[in-house]
Amino acid sequence: MPKQMSRHSTVLKSPRRQAGKPRPHSGEPTHGPLTAEELQLAVRNHSMPLEALRKDTTPPGLHYVLTHFDIPFIDTDHWHLQIGGAVQRSLELSFRALLRAPSITIPVTLECAGNGRSLLRPRPLSQPWVLEAVGTAVWTGVPLAYLLTQAGVEDDAVEVLFSGVDTGVQGGVRQQFARSLPIEEALRPDVVLAYRMNGAELPPQHGYPLRLVVPGWYGMASVKWLSSIKVLTRPYDGFQQAVAYRYQEDADDAGTPVTWMKVRSLMVPPGVPDFFSRSRILPPGPVLLTGRAWSGQGAVQRVDVGIDGKWAPAHLEHPPAPFAWCAWSMPWVADPGEHEVSCRATDASGAVQPLEPVWNYQGMGNNVVQRIKVTVGQ
Amino acid sequence: MPKQMSRHSTVLKSPRRQAGKPRPHSGEPTHGPLTAEELQLAVRNHSMPLEALRKDTTPPGLHYVLTHFDIPFIDTDHWHLQIGGAVQRSLELSFRALLRAPSITIPVTLECAGNGRSLLRPRPLSQPWVLEAVGTAVWTGVPLAYLLTQAGVEDDAVEVLFSGVDTGVQGGVRQQFARSLPIEEALRPDVVLAYRMNGAELPPQHGYPLRLVVPGWYGMASVKWLSSIKVLTRPYDGFQQAVAYRYQEDADDAGTPVTWMKVRSLMVPPGVPDFFSRSRILPPGPVLLTGRAWSGQGAVQRVDVGIDGKWAPAHLEHPPAPFAWCAWSMPWVADPGEHEVSCRATDASGAVQPLEPVWNYQGMGNNVVQRIKVTVGQ
Repeated sequence: MPKQMSRHSTVLKSPRRQAGKPRPHSGEPTHGPLTAEELQLAVRNHSMPLEALRKDTTPPGLHYVLTHFDIPFIDTDHWHLQIGGAVQRSLELSFRALLRAPSITIPVTLECAGNGRSLLRPRPLSQPWVLEAVGTAVWTGVPLAYLLTQAGVEDDAVEVLFSGVDTGVQGGVRQQFARSLPIEEALRPDVVLAYRMNGAELPPQHGYPLRLVVPGWYGMASVKWLSSIKVLTRPYDGFQQAVAYRYQEDADDAGTPVTWMKVRSLMVPPGVPDFFSRSRILPPGPVLLTGRAWSGQGAVQRVDVGIDGKWAPAHLEHPPAPFAWCAWSMPWVADPGEHEVSCRATDASGAVQPLEPVWNYQGMGNNVVQRIKVTVGQ
Repeated sequence: MPKQMSRHSTVLKSPRRQAGKPRPHSGEPTHGPLTAEELQLAVRNHSMPLEALRKDTTPPGLHYVLTHFDIPFIDTDHWHLQIGGAVQRSLELSFRALLRAPSITIPVTLECAGNGRSLLRPRPLSQPWVLEAVGTAVWTGVPLAYLLTQAGVEDDAVEVLFSGVDTGVQGGVRQQFARSLPIEEALRPDVVLAYRMNGAELPPQHGYPLRLVVPGWYGMASVKWLSSIKVLTRPYDGFQQAVAYRYQEDADDAGTPVTWMKVRSLMVPPGVPDFFSRSRILPPGPVLLTGRAWSGQGAVQRVDVGIDGKWAPAHLEHPPAPFAWCAWSMPWVADPGEHEVSCRATDASGAVQPLEPVWNYQGMGNNVVQRIKVTVGQ
């Protein structure tokens, strides 16, 4: 757990950014209506329908997806992974060679760092997630550390850079999507170069043929459609590292990097929905409220369930892996009328979900508690 | 091809609806900003990222999905398909029994009837699709006619009703999702009870374990999560038939039913995107514009490509099946500057995509031409 990512890290003071640098978003945060651009992103990328919280493992088409540029459709006959930079032996691996390397299989919960963004006021202009940009998959692939060790990391290495083949423009900057990890993170035994998701070939939108999976970190770290891995002796300062994915107070704040997932819980909405409002209708009587909770900053230690603002601890199950979500449940006897049900997780670092959104300039890491309106019939 | 579904059918005059009946939507069409409810639907359901037009067959997680209520997660050990009503022998089939029945495999393009809704002014309040609520899958299953013939359809049958297990509230009406087909449509040899999609088990969101697929019709006809099939001697007048999915002029217009897909073409956006605006950037020089076109009302006969408003016919390929989309292509020499590229299909019925959206009260069947802003660099 990195020291700098305490639960109070969201809006840390930091040095001022120089004027004229690229901006992460295409306009200042707004109190205005949702724009056509945000709607286009919302219908294109998708979050996880909350009823999929019933499943330990999220089916691929229900797992959240965020694609910055276009989804590449890659032919593995013409694809190689390059491993180079500050290493003793550069490697170039075909897809077949990767399949022959030792592999691990690991369940991991991934969440978009921008989850909850649309609930912020003013609203940062980017992908307008509500609450459910999350999913848990079982990833199979080669431990990154195995290949880095094969290549032989030089002593002065500080970071490892991962580049995808996906290209486009963001914040006025033409770029190939690329992000780095500190060398000590890259050498963790559970960081994986994944070529299978839930036992099947990676779907195109999840990074076929090869993606990084960094358990515990927000999703942007798990670079998709990998083409090269480069060991660096200086920190990477590309767009997705130095401009995007930062906790900033305002446009001029250099901010702090977005890294580990904050603690969050979500509930399967009880009863049945109204199609348009998604408000819930259920009969009176006993109902078992269920959901999932996760954190990248420490094991989930408790989940409290709130019924009309009164909180009580739920039953919590052990997660299947350190960075996979854990199931929780809470019996409730629903009596007729209007209710608000909610859930709130606490992790081993002491972090607890806030009752109100915590604002920052890019709309990152908003782990506010979920609130569900429920109408219990007579 | 049913006579009533000519290309002029969108806003046919029809008898006035009685007052006090359920309404399809949760409010009158609006010129106002996108609502929180529409955003919630947009991040929950998803359309097909346009770059997936490159693929003959849409990978399951990229195929459009609209779920009215919640996705049910069904255990086939406790699931049966009931076939009854006006038949000589009611049937009850286990999933295993269905797998033993004769099967066909067929590529089908499915499009949501509400595709294009968010582009209408005023905007009907429902799922706010932009342009890409479509997908093509290869479906495998039992021909419906085979099972109906086994059951023995009575002579006075007029429709067949399909009920899913998904339940909820829409327009104030508690319901199980259910739709009917005219008996002559239900007996078509290509209407299939599908249990496989692209060679794999149906994903939960596409109707596991069994769904109807009605080639040529908008997606609402292809009822998911089937639990019962009932042969009717009177037309079905349930919510999704008599209230929703109708071409109406206003709330009091009984309207005409939404049935066959209108002609539409879409283009793979050329070049690379800007993350937020999705506008396109490409270098000057030759580029091959490509896309797909389809219609439920007759074979696609031509696709015209518009460059800054000047139209010329594209090369058109044969579709792999009568109701699967066909590929088209058009070479273009892009010169520096701002351009608008678009495409427009015509089908064998003479129907052609409108240059401006054609409004109706529920926002159904808006097959307006797609227009893409392109910046060609120096």
